[in-house]
Amino acid sequence: MKSSSSSTGFSHLDATGNARMVDVGAKPDSVRVAVAVGRLTCDPTTIRQLRLQALPKGDVLTVAKIAGVQAAKATSTLIPLCHPLALTAMEIEFKIETDGIVVKATARTTGKTGVEMEALTAVSVTALTLYDMCKAVDKGMSIGGIRVVEKHKS
Amino acid sequence: MKSSSSSTGFSHLDATGNARMVDVGAKPDSVRVAVAVGRLTCDPTTIRQLRLQALPKGDVLTVAKIAGVQAAKATSTLIPLCHPLALTAMEIEFKIETDGIVVKATARTTGKTGVEMEALTAVSVTALTLYDMCKAVDKGMSIGGIRVVEKHKS
Amino acid sequence: MKSSSSSTGFSHLDATGNARMVDVGAKPDSVRVAVAVGRLTCDPTTIRQLRLQALPKGDVLTVAKIAGVQAAKATSTLIPLCHPLALTAMEIEFKIETDGIVVKATARTTGKTGVEMEALTAVSVTALTLYDMCKAVDKGMSIGGIRVVEKHKS
Amino acid sequence: MKSSSSSTGFSHLDATGNARMVDVGAKPDSVRVAVAVGRLTCDPTTIRQLRLQALPKGDVLTVAKIAGVQAAKATSTLIPLCHPLALTAMEIEFKIETDGIVVKATARTTGKTGVEMEALTAVSVTALTLYDMCKAVDKGMSIGGIRVVEKHKS
Amino acid sequence: MKSSSSSTGFSHLDATGNARMVDVGAKPDSVRVAVAVGRLTCDPTTIRQLRLQALPKGDVLTVAKIAGVQAAKATSTLIPLCHPLALTAMEIEFKIETDGIVVKATARTTGKTGVEMEALTAVSVTALTLYDMCKAVDKGMSIGGIRVVEKHKS
Amino acid sequence: MKSSSSSTGFSHLDATGNARMVDVGAKPDSVRVAVAVGRLTCDPTTIRQLRLQALPKGDVLTVAKIAGVQAAKATSTLIPLCHPLALTAMEIEFKIETDGIVVKATARTTGKTGVEMEALTAVSVTALTLYDMCKAVDKGMSIGGIRVVEKHKS
Repeated sequence: MKSSSSSTGFSHLDATGNARMVDVGAKPDSVRVAVAVGRLTCDPTTIRQLRLQALPKGDVLTVAKIAGVQAAKATSTLIPLCHPLALTAMEIEFKIETDGIVVKATARTTGKTGVEMEALTAVSVTALTLYDMCKAVDKGMSIGGIRVVEKHKS
Repeated sequence: MKSSSSSTGFSHLDATGNARMVDVGAKPDSVRVAVAVGRLTCDPTTIRQLRLQALPKGDVLTVAKIAGVQAAKATSTLIPLCHPLALTAMEIEFKIETDGIVVKATARTTGKTGVEMEALTAVSVTALTLYDMCKAVDKGMSIGGIRVVEKHKS
Repeated sequence: MKSSSSSTGFSHLDATGNARMVDVGAKPDSVRVAVAVGRLTCDPTTIRQLRLQALPKGDVLTVAKIAGVQAAKATSTLIPLCHPLALTAMEIEFKIETDGIVVKATARTTGKTGVEMEALTAVSVTALTLYDMCKAVDKGMSIGGIRVVEKHKS
Repeated sequence: MKSSSSSTGFSHLDATGNARMVDVGAKPDSVRVAVAVGRLTCDPTTIRQLRLQALPKGDVLTVAKIAGVQAAKATSTLIPLCHPLALTAMEIEFKIETDGIVVKATARTTGKTGVEMEALTAVSVTALTLYDMCKAVDKGMSIGGIRVVEKHKS
Repeated sequence: MKSSSSSTGFSHLDATGNARMVDVGAKPDSVRVAVAVGRLTCDPTTIRQLRLQALPKGDVLTVAKIAGVQAAKATSTLIPLCHPLALTAMEIEFKIETDGIVVKATARTTGKTGVEMEALTAVSVTALTLYDMCKAVDKGMSIGGIRVVEKHKS
Repeated sequence: MKSSSSSTGFSHLDATGNARMVDVGAKPDSVRVAVAVGRLTCDPTTIRQLRLQALPKGDVLTVAKIAGVQAAKATSTLIPLCHPLALTAMEIEFKIETDGIVVKATARTTGKTGVEMEALTAVSVTALTLYDMCKAVDKGMSIGGIRVVEKHKS
């Protein structure tokens, strides 16, 4: 079985549908950037409480950001067919809205594979951490809109 | 500073807005169950391709399921203020729809804290793994609707 | 799908062959012990060199032992359908023979599931670590005979 | 103490028998490949049951494969004196025989050290995972014949 | 070799000086608390800069605190002969002084072993994280005074 | 927000005091070395007991050394804003004194960032492991003097 060819469009599957870790050894090292976003949707009351009690101190957003950065570094441990790579930068930003918090993650590396899974993982775990910290006051939250909004290499 | 009291509603924050890991030592051990769902939304063509090339062999769903189970076990490593706990069961189910895949995760433990973060983490990482395996054929996917649909203890 | 029943004999598979993490929530906590063994087979020259240069100092066996203990603690991270459990003791012993090293691992816990996978994982990683430390002088080694030799609960 | 010299043949031991992590900083980056094999030996009845109940669905082999790939990525965490390296490909194949399953793992990287420990670790953890999934129906299995069958760089 | 006896005073060493993981299976579950402290010593200018530029926002202390909490949960992964245990609470506090920052960590569990290593690990990694965040402005920092100041069970 | 500029001296903080992971993508790969030291201070009786019962066998120092090497490889997992990097060498040395043990760690890599955090982490976890192994005979130990003593690139 030759791992670098595939008759399906799914790069992680060989011609017979078996999952595999793609061989990226022949790819050149490029600077790669990916940006992903996602959103924790909650009750407006939760946002008001956060603004009053939590956001001034800042801990809520910082804890979530650190969780996202750490998860991004662990992406190849979490997503089985992802290649290990060394992130050169990881940035997480928040936008507080009246009924939710938007999370935006930018991942960068110099390597052989793209970093969209790192950006998506960072967004997901950042949002899960926000959820964890708000769940005592809001039982109806959800996380959604997780997607890649930008990806390029140079 | 006494960690078991809080003047805010946010259990992970003390009266001055500082993040903390709640003291659950006084809580009794209960059987706890939580069910979470989420959805990978993709192009109908992607689902058709999956049905043709990947689902018969089954690897795609199995890889995603294993990733979700492993992530659930790692929840307290991923979500900073989560308590470590020993899951007694973790189940992941899929529903293939015309333009997406629904992921449902059921977490169980006998312990001092609920397992909704474990269920939500399982759903998120299962969906991210599906995304990873389909991203070569579909650039417009998104993950959403991640929420708890059931939670109880006995 | 009810996770506690199975029409196959394989406890990790449900009636339709899907992998799953068995629900052990209803099992009582017992003291559980498992003993596993395995063997690194090498050239007699390698053992003579080890006796001369490495075993007096002891580092080779100690490094391998620590690797085995750490791997045993990580068993549920390595073996996807294993339940997390808290080992109460882990012991690794060696027997140096003329053309190999026997590794014996004893795992103990007070919990809901047996610890044979912990003992087997400890033996495997201990032997792999011995292999790693001897591979510069011996290209023909192999690891085998990994099996459970004792298992009981009380 | 200069870490790049050794009067013993054991590269992981210095002249006085102390374990150490070899300095590979001066080595050039090469494409490195290693292939390892191993075998789970079980009762022929177990193989017949697997063929009937588990192999059609495929989960058993896929779960084991994913465990092996993830373990390969974690090799430097498991084997203390192994250097961290970024695998560019990892392939795991199975051969079902009448009384056992042969596991073959191929690891590739572009880096300063060989990847035989990654291939051997993948084989070992894949076989342990197969063991875990069959242990409810077969108490007499063993794992053996774990060895490197091919290794080269270019 | 019986792992529960020792003719040396060192509980982690057997009668012949071999390292081992003590068998704690026979110990009762108790509520256990340990408090440890440590100090990052730096230039008074660094503290003044922190007060001006970093402490109002709070990120520096929060990042360090989260690192400490996460490290405490990982203690048995870091310290080879430590038993895995489930922390029920972990609190980290800071005292800013003119030429340094005091870190105080309180660990709690209900279990079979004490938690002083968890408290000490939390203090160490919290201080290392502070060091990391200040190292660009202060090349002469040091970390010291790491010790247990309180330990009891009930 | 541009992550490569900072109006504060703290490289891990942006102009508004937010923590971030610095972008090192533009830095060239260099050979980087860092040496850190630290000291476990204990009762002279503890050292005498160690010399009598533990040091001849060597396990105590070897276990601590392996813990330090493994922690160094995990630095970017432990220290949130550290970049992942592949250590090419890690050496840990001990000096036994009448009332303490000095730990010295030398880290090397070929990469974009310095390795002082790896060296400091190795020293800290090595000292914590020594503490763990001696705590049954000595309740008054402390760890201190953790600092970088050498750092250069070429």
